[in-house]
Amino acid sequence: MSSNSKQSGEFAFIAALANKAATTPEALGLGEDGAVLWIGDGRKLVLVADMLQAGVHTMKDASAGQIASKALRANLSDLAAMGAEPAFYLSTICWSGAPAELEMQILSEALVKDQEKFGISLIGGDTICGQGPMAISITALGWVSGPLLRRIGAQIGDDVWVSGTIGDGWLGLGVAKGEISSLNSGDTEYLKERYEYPEPRLALGARLASVAHCALDISDGLIADATHLAGGGDCCLCLDVERIPMSAAAHHWLREQKNQAQAREALMAGGDDYELLFTAAADQRVQIAMLSKETGLELTRIGCVQKGQGVMLGKADGTLHLAGNSGFTHF
Amino acid sequence: MSSNSKQSGEFAFIAALANKAATTPEALGLGEDGAVLWIGDGRKLVLVADMLQAGVHTMKDASAGQIASKALRANLSDLAAMGAEPAFYLSTICWSGAPAELEMQILSEALVKDQEKFGISLIGGDTICGQGPMAISITALGWVSGPLLRRIGAQIGDDVWVSGTIGDGWLGLGVAKGEISSLNSGDTEYLKERYEYPEPRLALGARLASVAHCALDISDGLIADATHLAGGGDCCLCLDVERIPMSAAAHHWLREQKNQAQAREALMAGGDDYELLFTAAADQRVQIAMLSKETGLELTRIGCVQKGQGVMLGKADGTLHLAGNSGFTHF
Repeated sequence: MSSNSKQSGEFAFIAALANKAATTPEALGLGEDGAVLWIGDGRKLVLVADMLQAGVHTMKDASAGQIASKALRANLSDLAAMGAEPAFYLSTICWSGAPAELEMQILSEALVKDQEKFGISLIGGDTICGQGPMAISITALGWVSGPLLRRIGAQIGDDVWVSGTIGDGWLGLGVAKGEISSLNSGDTEYLKERYEYPEPRLALGARLASVAHCALDISDGLIADATHLAGGGDCCLCLDVERIPMSAAAHHWLREQKNQAQAREALMAGGDDYELLFTAAADQRVQIAMLSKETGLELTRIGCVQKGQGVMLGKADGTLHLAGNSGFTHF
Repeated sequence: MSSNSKQSGEFAFIAALANKAATTPEALGLGEDGAVLWIGDGRKLVLVADMLQAGVHTMKDASAGQIASKALRANLSDLAAMGAEPAFYLSTICWSGAPAELEMQILSEALVKDQEKFGISLIGGDTICGQGPMAISITALGWVSGPLLRRIGAQIGDDVWVSGTIGDGWLGLGVAKGEISSLNSGDTEYLKERYEYPEPRLALGARLASVAHCALDISDGLIADATHLAGGGDCCLCLDVERIPMSAAAHHWLREQKNQAQAREALMAGGDDYELLFTAAADQRVQIAMLSKETGLELTRIGCVQKGQGVMLGKADGTLHLAGNSGFTHF
């Protein structure tokens, strides 16, 4: 849950809750990817909670295992964004009617597989037989022993960095919906996988606090989430559109599009990337290159932090324009 | 989430998760009302998670405020059952379509009101615009500084105790559904209130660890939950049907029923009581009477713990028979 300056229905609701219901320091004003408990022994316990529903965050016909896996990974991505090491999670499962034995088995196996992959254990929850599409809510807990990575802290003169590639999640959704059919099977499989099984950047997040000034994970779309970092630092994030990292599959899609500028912006506005976006001082470039090597994860410098507000997009023709708030909101 | 010996679909699923996914000590085998983190400084952090959906746990036309309030109170009841003092909660809200401003305001006000009443603060969560009826999942956190109250620990010779009155939640649902219409307006208002706004027994729970051997909160129904305590102690809970405490409204309903024995058992099987059920050594009776006075809450000795398994019901005619597993399960 996070509030920001964009006072649409969803954000206005969260802002109202932050003012009235979440005034304790542990809530961090509902402005971060999670909450923090300062435990007596110097460690910090980070808590994040995200809910997913079939047909909203996954395809309507996604299996119980896919929904559970994506729910767990979305939460792990929030832990990564705060530099936390995953420890435990609780899951509440709202089945769509009474589940079949096989569905329960598929869900259980998906959770067990991802638990082992990411080093997190189930400790509790609830399971109900609901009406409507299946929904899963997860609360994940992680430990931070060093400094906490937050959304606030971007400084004028910082570089802006992003992990991995941008737009794959959004393209994967298009592929899954049958709206994108011109790509080869290798590309379509890759993109669907990126949409269905996001990879939380835990190793990067855990090492990022020592080099970055601020970070978050990109779930609403690069532009919307860059706007959050700009708001958190009272500054402007200038992004170089030509430098946004893209996968080979995204490049293949892009070269087919008539309006290149519009297509690039669509990739930057689409959600479900689950990459980390962060800013760091310019003297950290060597450290960040080493971090990229250590984690085996591409890290791309995509812009800089300047005076101002919001997000500016620099185009190939040298023009600079203010990005609209084109990210995903629920209402 | 809790597993028990009743291997219906829901419990079998939880048992499978407990064996494969929740093997860490903090999970307590998914057999309790919550999980426990042993924090370095000797305190314990208890975590509980329950999800509610409109039309399943509330009336279909319940307001967003009623659903949120009941979700929070159900979680607080789980904290009470483990003897934890409420501290923080995270909520994930799945709206039924895009919410109106007024709905958001009503939900926010309901949470703020209950937060203040029960001493708990919102620290995070998520809000989505879903399909299907509204659902709210809450993860609540509480502190325990003394011993932990658990479901295991019933001992042969213990007394069995229950707080408050039994059956009101179930009758309240009947009233709300229009299935019970013969009661006066005072009774119907009282019963509906009991169904819609359960009162978590926090003050009792916090003091219970020093006198009780085990405890849980009654959400599935007295008989089903007594079966959990019997399973946790490998013993039999013998309950005296005539001693089950009932409200004046429940008595009014009962005297109209043709089959008294069946009606009494219906009250004992109905869910949504959110009272605490516990066992304690016979030498604790004076302490428990004092506890009742301190908390202003009726505590009734309703039976004893004997060798055997499951729950036996002692009737007015002196007969004793094994209770069926008539509590609420989701699937």
